[in-house]
Amino acid sequence: MKLFNISPINNELKTQIKHKIDFKTKPLNSLGTLEKIAEKLCLIQETLTPQLNNTALIVFAADHGIAATNIVSPYPQEVTAQMVLNFLSGGAAINVFCEQNNINLSIVDAGVNFEFTPNKSLINAKIAHGTCDYSKEPAMSEEQCYKAIEIGSELMIQKHSNGCNCISFGEMGIGNTSSAALLMSAFTKIPIENCVGKGTGLTETGVSKKATVLKQVQEFHGISTNALENLQNFGGFEIAMICGAMLEAAELKMTIIVDGFIVTSALLVAQAIEPTILDYCLFSHVSDEQGHKNMLNYLNATPILQLDLRLGEGTGAAIVYPIIQSAANFMNKMASFESAGVSNKEN
Amino acid sequence: MKLFNISPINNELKTQIKHKIDFKTKPLNSLGTLEKIAEKLCLIQETLTPQLNNTALIVFAADHGIAATNIVSPYPQEVTAQMVLNFLSGGAAINVFCEQNNINLSIVDAGVNFEFTPNKSLINAKIAHGTCDYSKEPAMSEEQCYKAIEIGSELMIQKHSNGCNCISFGEMGIGNTSSAALLMSAFTKIPIENCVGKGTGLTETGVSKKATVLKQVQEFHGISTNALENLQNFGGFEIAMICGAMLEAAELKMTIIVDGFIVTSALLVAQAIEPTILDYCLFSHVSDEQGHKNMLNYLNATPILQLDLRLGEGTGAAIVYPIIQSAANFMNKMASFESAGVSNKEN
Repeated sequence: MKLFNISPINNELKTQIKHKIDFKTKPLNSLGTLEKIAEKLCLIQETLTPQLNNTALIVFAADHGIAATNIVSPYPQEVTAQMVLNFLSGGAAINVFCEQNNINLSIVDAGVNFEFTPNKSLINAKIAHGTCDYSKEPAMSEEQCYKAIEIGSELMIQKHSNGCNCISFGEMGIGNTSSAALLMSAFTKIPIENCVGKGTGLTETGVSKKATVLKQVQEFHGISTNALENLQNFGGFEIAMICGAMLEAAELKMTIIVDGFIVTSALLVAQAIEPTILDYCLFSHVSDEQGHKNMLNYLNATPILQLDLRLGEGTGAAIVYPIIQSAANFMNKMASFESAGVSNKEN
Repeated sequence: MKLFNISPINNELKTQIKHKIDFKTKPLNSLGTLEKIAEKLCLIQETLTPQLNNTALIVFAADHGIAATNIVSPYPQEVTAQMVLNFLSGGAAINVFCEQNNINLSIVDAGVNFEFTPNKSLINAKIAHGTCDYSKEPAMSEEQCYKAIEIGSELMIQKHSNGCNCISFGEMGIGNTSSAALLMSAFTKIPIENCVGKGTGLTETGVSKKATVLKQVQEFHGISTNALENLQNFGGFEIAMICGAMLEAAELKMTIIVDGFIVTSALLVAQAIEPTILDYCLFSHVSDEQGHKNMLNYLNATPILQLDLRLGEGTGAAIVYPIIQSAANFMNKMASFESAGVSNKEN
């Protein structure tokens, strides 16, 4: 597999960044979280004037062998393909929010169990017609896993060469909260039953059945000390591609806006491979899916929004984006006490 | 004083609104807070297709007699006028965020202790060169208070006649967290010392001195059962104008995006006069100013953002605005299960 080489952030600029923020015409620290976002953007871009250029969001869609059992989701597997068609015709939530916030949206078929008519808006990167049923065998082969990571990485190189320096990821795949829960348990060591949530809307009984199935899956494969082996056993193709894309994005010093439960599970794999990836991540929101809060705690990550979202598709990232723009904008456009002729606090 | 006639929201549409939201192509309730915002917009506008038209934000600036004592703020009183000039030249935080989010920004001199050169971007509504020092006498006369409310109301009628149906308010006035704290204590009955915070950046000792001064002020005037008398005793001209503007906005069935600590104190006065005003309010954020959380609890209000902002000027409202737009947009633009040909949850 491709090796990623992610430079840790250089903290030398911190003093200068703080000085610039503190001399804006506002009480000290009064922009709260926006000041922290601004600092992060500056550190990633090694500048005092951060820019968000050609911001893009890629939705990876794939199917999951386990979904055929109809235990892990209240929606049938066909919904993955149906939703891809909904993305292509512009009717999904992620279309609406990306259009509103001027985010370039791409849709990738990472492994949907459906043959789409060729469509210039759909990137065909199908690894297979869905993963294998991980209750019986690994979800994917080593080769498939490497290929998915490679494709994610290549897509990122392409985006970057088009001038994009801020990226986010979404996902669609009936059953993929189960993969995310298994990965979460594998990396955080939190018992699987505490990683399982209602996904797209299971009842309490449904959640409990899902937990029982996933506990058996975890016992069947065991937890590996090798990050990629866990990804092969429990992953989805969309999760593997997001993992590869994230690693490449960090290597290219792009800002990554991390979305909800499934996307964060891809980051769990990525940070196990290259912990410095976290230097490049902002966290859009904490999902209403029960495990997400603990995932974020494990990553020592503070989400920007708490809106009880649990839709997926990258919607949290698309919704939070204007706030990240606000952080860049105040850094670049607000006057300083000196330039505006405003008296500073009497110390 | 003008009497306001605010109709309570008609809840008849609720079932239809819920049906429309629930049949969008997404898991049930998965847009969390956005669904609640969408419902509120629909109820206010009595429609299933809410629109945000010519959204505006008005910053009211005024000075406070108490500020001359230099106890309640670490900034000198001159900063109010200096910041107004900063607003006019586009260098303040509120300029940056309104420009970003396409919000029409107006600046009103409600009573700044400075003679501005006439400027077409500054609305001159000066009641006086600042309020009186409320440690010695009421902050304003009954006549001044009524006049301020009237001006706020007239400004709103003007905005509404220009097609604006969504409005927010900001404020600038060195010392005005003290007025807000006194009003908070008067209406919520929370002891004044628990309503006092660091404002623009007092030290712990400073906060404690401020609390001592304000406790004396409260004892001097007492708490009236008449809302407007409390406003006259403790208020600022900016707070009185915001109060009048809010009451008129609700009468005109406009959506009010309520900002931080000082703006919410104006709402405390307004809701004491007309409790139904709350039907028209969305709450942008919970401020880092310590009393704000309790103010919101008193109003049974849930803030959309928690970003540790405490800048004032209406910045929280300007920052949250795209999220409110997202709520309107998903209602209007997302496909339904039926229209997109997506299978709904198996019940």
